[in-house]
Amino acid sequence: MANERWTLDPDRCFSPEPSVRSRARELHAEVERLPLVSPHGHVAARLFADEGARLPDPATLFVTGDPYVFRLLHAHGLAHEELGLAPLGGGERETDPRAVWRRFCERFDLFDGTPTGLWLKTTFVHVFGLRERPSADSADRLFDALAEALVSPEFAPRALLSRFGVEHLATTDPADAGLDDHRSAQAAGLRVVPTFRPDGLMQLADPEWRARVERLAAVVGFEVGSLEAFLEAVRARRLAFAEAGATASDHAVTSADLSPMDSDDAAELFARALAGQASPAEAERFHAHMLFEMARMATEDGLVMQLHVGSLRNHDLRLLDRFGPDMGADVPVAMDLTRGLQPLLNAFGDETRFRLVVYTLDETTYARELAPLAGHYPALRLGSPWWFHDSVKGIERYLDAVVETAGFRKLAGFVDDARALPTLWARHDVWRRTTCDWLARLERRGLIDEGAAVRSARWLAYGAARDTFRVGDRDEPAAPTS
Amino acid sequence: MANERWTLDPDRCFSPEPSVRSRARELHAEVERLPLVSPHGHVAARLFADEGARLPDPATLFVTGDPYVFRLLHAHGLAHEELGLAPLGGGERETDPRAVWRRFCERFDLFDGTPTGLWLKTTFVHVFGLRERPSADSADRLFDALAEALVSPEFAPRALLSRFGVEHLATTDPADAGLDDHRSAQAAGLRVVPTFRPDGLMQLADPEWRARVERLAAVVGFEVGSLEAFLEAVRARRLAFAEAGATASDHAVTSADLSPMDSDDAAELFARALAGQASPAEAERFHAHMLFEMARMATEDGLVMQLHVGSLRNHDLRLLDRFGPDMGADVPVAMDLTRGLQPLLNAFGDETRFRLVVYTLDETTYARELAPLAGHYPALRLGSPWWFHDSVKGIERYLDAVVETAGFRKLAGFVDDARALPTLWARHDVWRRTTCDWLARLERRGLIDEGAAVRSARWLAYGAARDTFRVGDRDEPAAPTS
Amino acid sequence: MANERWTLDPDRCFSPEPSVRSRARELHAEVERLPLVSPHGHVAARLFADEGARLPDPATLFVTGDPYVFRLLHAHGLAHEELGLAPLGGGERETDPRAVWRRFCERFDLFDGTPTGLWLKTTFVHVFGLRERPSADSADRLFDALAEALVSPEFAPRALLSRFGVEHLATTDPADAGLDDHRSAQAAGLRVVPTFRPDGLMQLADPEWRARVERLAAVVGFEVGSLEAFLEAVRARRLAFAEAGATASDHAVTSADLSPMDSDDAAELFARALAGQASPAEAERFHAHMLFEMARMATEDGLVMQLHVGSLRNHDLRLLDRFGPDMGADVPVAMDLTRGLQPLLNAFGDETRFRLVVYTLDETTYARELAPLAGHYPALRLGSPWWFHDSVKGIERYLDAVVETAGFRKLAGFVDDARALPTLWARHDVWRRTTCDWLARLERRGLIDEGAAVRSARWLAYGAARDTFRVGDRDEPAAPTS
Repeated sequence: MANERWTLDPDRCFSPEPSVRSRARELHAEVERLPLVSPHGHVAARLFADEGARLPDPATLFVTGDPYVFRLLHAHGLAHEELGLAPLGGGERETDPRAVWRRFCERFDLFDGTPTGLWLKTTFVHVFGLRERPSADSADRLFDALAEALVSPEFAPRALLSRFGVEHLATTDPADAGLDDHRSAQAAGLRVVPTFRPDGLMQLADPEWRARVERLAAVVGFEVGSLEAFLEAVRARRLAFAEAGATASDHAVTSADLSPMDSDDAAELFARALAGQASPAEAERFHAHMLFEMARMATEDGLVMQLHVGSLRNHDLRLLDRFGPDMGADVPVAMDLTRGLQPLLNAFGDETRFRLVVYTLDETTYARELAPLAGHYPALRLGSPWWFHDSVKGIERYLDAVVETAGFRKLAGFVDDARALPTLWARHDVWRRTTCDWLARLERRGLIDEGAAVRSARWLAYGAARDTFRVGDRDEPAAPTS
Repeated sequence: MANERWTLDPDRCFSPEPSVRSRARELHAEVERLPLVSPHGHVAARLFADEGARLPDPATLFVTGDPYVFRLLHAHGLAHEELGLAPLGGGERETDPRAVWRRFCERFDLFDGTPTGLWLKTTFVHVFGLRERPSADSADRLFDALAEALVSPEFAPRALLSRFGVEHLATTDPADAGLDDHRSAQAAGLRVVPTFRPDGLMQLADPEWRARVERLAAVVGFEVGSLEAFLEAVRARRLAFAEAGATASDHAVTSADLSPMDSDDAAELFARALAGQASPAEAERFHAHMLFEMARMATEDGLVMQLHVGSLRNHDLRLLDRFGPDMGADVPVAMDLTRGLQPLLNAFGDETRFRLVVYTLDETTYARELAPLAGHYPALRLGSPWWFHDSVKGIERYLDAVVETAGFRKLAGFVDDARALPTLWARHDVWRRTTCDWLARLERRGLIDEGAAVRSARWLAYGAARDTFRVGDRDEPAAPTS
Repeated sequence: MANERWTLDPDRCFSPEPSVRSRARELHAEVERLPLVSPHGHVAARLFADEGARLPDPATLFVTGDPYVFRLLHAHGLAHEELGLAPLGGGERETDPRAVWRRFCERFDLFDGTPTGLWLKTTFVHVFGLRERPSADSADRLFDALAEALVSPEFAPRALLSRFGVEHLATTDPADAGLDDHRSAQAAGLRVVPTFRPDGLMQLADPEWRARVERLAAVVGFEVGSLEAFLEAVRARRLAFAEAGATASDHAVTSADLSPMDSDDAAELFARALAGQASPAEAERFHAHMLFEMARMATEDGLVMQLHVGSLRNHDLRLLDRFGPDMGADVPVAMDLTRGLQPLLNAFGDETRFRLVVYTLDETTYARELAPLAGHYPALRLGSPWWFHDSVKGIERYLDAVVETAGFRKLAGFVDDARALPTLWARHDVWRRTTCDWLARLERRGLIDEGAAVRSARWLAYGAARDTFRVGDRDEPAAPTS
């Protein structure tokens, strides 16, 4: 097996039924050369700030740096330290990337049937030209080949953007982020833009919160001693992001209840929080209040508001203690979006300038809550399948659940959410193939006509993301109304 | 595109795989000429009261009058006024149906992939013989053709019933409805019957409630000053409906908890409500109590009890203020039917005369709650997929989820829920084709034999609705046992 | 119809699409002769204790003794007494098995499209060689043929185990069960082992609880007057089970909250419970506490811990009064496993010796909660689809939902849950065919390669159950660490 030539099926993701497959191929031919629009992801802007930037070694890039990969290896008994992850307090860990890489290759079968396995195979074969399946036997050869490629100009981040045809790439950045890397990239002709992600500023009860407020004050250049000043500072940063090309903000939502507070109460709570006196329950109410304020600001500055809902962060508390957050141990929970989004949608859902994109990890809300809401409120678009669900079957379940109620034109297109830049193409490849196949089946069942199939394939592959995230509008920066 | 001949795929809804498709065709041939039974819908009885009645103009019929259509147009930014809908306070709105129709035709692509799009296409092509797709270009020609047809005797409501082969049509009517229109229709040989829908009488805290009680008193001819008298009046109306051919009652359920109150408490609450002193929470408890009473009455008079559960009405409160209810802004919520239906099913689920049909907007309850409950309690049948879910994929998900646990014989068949009468046939057409295709696939996988496939196709198309709603029994009116 | 030859489709469960079907056949050929591993079910050990044991008559075996069968017959109006079930207080019931059998055969169509129908057909045709479909006409002939077979040596329980190729069969047994039947079976070379199911000991508020504690004391041979002694007794029984070959414990979970109590509080509550003073709410907390203790013991003795979550037992209270529990009236409810399992997984989810297998009746948790949890915590494996869901479509939904996130190697394989021994083979047959077909489709879509398909087919059919339930390890009995 390990010595077979490893190849990509040119019909991957397509249905076996010949008439569907042949139509899927045709639709895919219509879209496969369209540019990529990447409105949400986690690739760092500094990778594009100068021509000389390079990606790290294969183990760091594909294993230690990717929670999708190390979480499943851990689930089969490997300690995080064995995968190169560093405990907070220091402590021993594997420092040899080649050793980490071997552990991964020996267990590559664990990724059979997973989107991670498919993305990695597509990336290794299509992007890097590898012809051997990862295994104990091939591990060292693959490491050498990848390591050599990754330091070459051909695989530099800027070169990959160009090779993949990425037209627009949005990074994810905290409120106080410097935006120089984005400006450097743009100066080189790349449309790499920031996304305003102020989660840290919303968490009143977090021990780090006051330090974050101080950093915010330093960046905006005025004191932030009241809620009014805080809102002004946030507004200023949104504008700075917009001027640096941002078209969107992004927000994690841990409680679906998005009711605003009375503004006097909010101001009073903010003052107490500065004095270190806010409780976790109060922090949660403030978080909801601030999301409401973010929506209000979005009606002014036109930044598209993204909500990522339904993840219980840091489920494994022992792991949180030892390694900190973002260790792949966030787990979805059910949420009531019908009631939760009601205050926000009642207030702003009919505003022309407001646009809300909701991503969820609770697939039961697709057909029950999100599609019906999007089929009524003009401001709402459905975010693409997220995280555990941006897979072949996840995409199919999403389309099955939402299209009949919301149609195609309320869908926000695809976000790749990539961390390892070389896998970005593979993720779009799976989306485009799977949507084309889904549309081909619809057409072959007589449920849409040929024109609608082509139109929808192009929309899902390209137009929806551009339109939803106002990519076409970015050269006309949004002006606040006040 | 707009000038292509617009045609219906004779194999629409069928699977592409040839062996499934050919069997689906055979099964469909077995059922396509069976009469239609329509046990629940929203077509007005007055349309059948006299031969001269006509349907309204195309825009009023298919756009302004159909929440499925105007909700999605609104979701893409059209104001309700632009679609001809009248604000409560008066105010401007589009009064030219042709202008409304043009807005719809220009945006017909928005309905790609939706059941509404499929129903409308089927209706326009099959029922009206149109050969052009709606578009900016074709809008006026289509309006003229439809408008001309709609005033002709060939498209009169009675003529459509006959052409569609509708054997039994149940309308939906408030408790104090006059039933003369139904009697007129019946006198002309049409089986158009009312359905007892007393929702308004259950809502103690509604400002209109006392007026409704007074109207009820006027209709029954005795004073309704106590719960006892109220129950007697309701019982009398149920009987009047049954005498006018009704075989069923229908109820919206906003809380799944159907526990009855202590009867003294209920009587006392009723008295306070008459004095205008019931709180919303009390109103909700009373609603549950009355549903329990309705079930008890159903064991006496044999009216089939329908529950429509899981919709949060009037989600968009600004819209409610401006336009009132029923504006397409009801949104589903999750509900616990296992615990919620327990009091009712414990009390009456084993009663021979009681029959309960439950429709839900929360598809997760199909396999988890409703099918297991229906697979135990004799009185319970599963209502067909409802509202957002009476689509090709919605029907498939329903059958996938319920048949393995409850079998075919616990399914209540199809209700079309139609508002625009001409689309009634299209909705049954989608149901019949999709169920036949689903059965064909089951048979081709060796999971049912040929006999079961034919038997089940006929049951789902026709027998289930007749049997569930006691249509065959209607000439033997139910006698109360007391 | 009744006189047609009744045959099994050799391609049953396979997709109609020819390329998928032919690959499914190949994969199935790889697994169909592998031994059966049955790590969870409800066949009584005494059936294997001596060679002379025989199964009961056809009606008792397939109807009166099988809740899957009698529940659906009851749902169509048959009284439980008519199906041979005995009311608690005595009272009349059908005592003629042939009459019960006739009622079943007359209504065999009710099982069209259900897994029960498929299992029974497979069993009647494949195991017993019947060639007539059950019907009013064939009922007596079938009864005679089955009754004759069931008393013959060829259909003795031991003979069936051997004929089916059952390598390992785990029964389900209360904590105080005598284990002699298992030992007798093992002495005859059969790997029939007990499973430790101490549910009754957890239910403090149950009127029978104290009697159970006394029986426990009698079996372990020391007084159980404190929580400490209780835990010691439980530990002793776990060891006794392990010595009798058990590799697992099993637990029903009615509340998903598995937080432990403070140990002093637990001890004090236990003492009050012995004095008959525990409330239902306290009993529930204690149940959760004991599950936590069970997990702790599992880290010591290595018994695999199974949780069956999400069933509301005895939904029909009138039935409970008249017939007692286990009458097929348990109904699923939604549960929050992300938060519910957190305490247990935080404490033990990373322990090498701990293994947890979770079965649920709430399919919405597959992709949202269980697969993400299993994709992180080493100790967790996903139990196979359970009860209402161990059907063709139930299995497909399960694989669709979990594999992409958790991969194949976190799946626990299949448990047949059989009550009527002759149906055991049919249940594995459906699992093996459906998983092979599912894998064939994945391969034909280019999502896994040939090697992964074969590997995964063998894993799901055989390896997963052996590995998960430590069947290979049973000859090296687990030693407590203390």
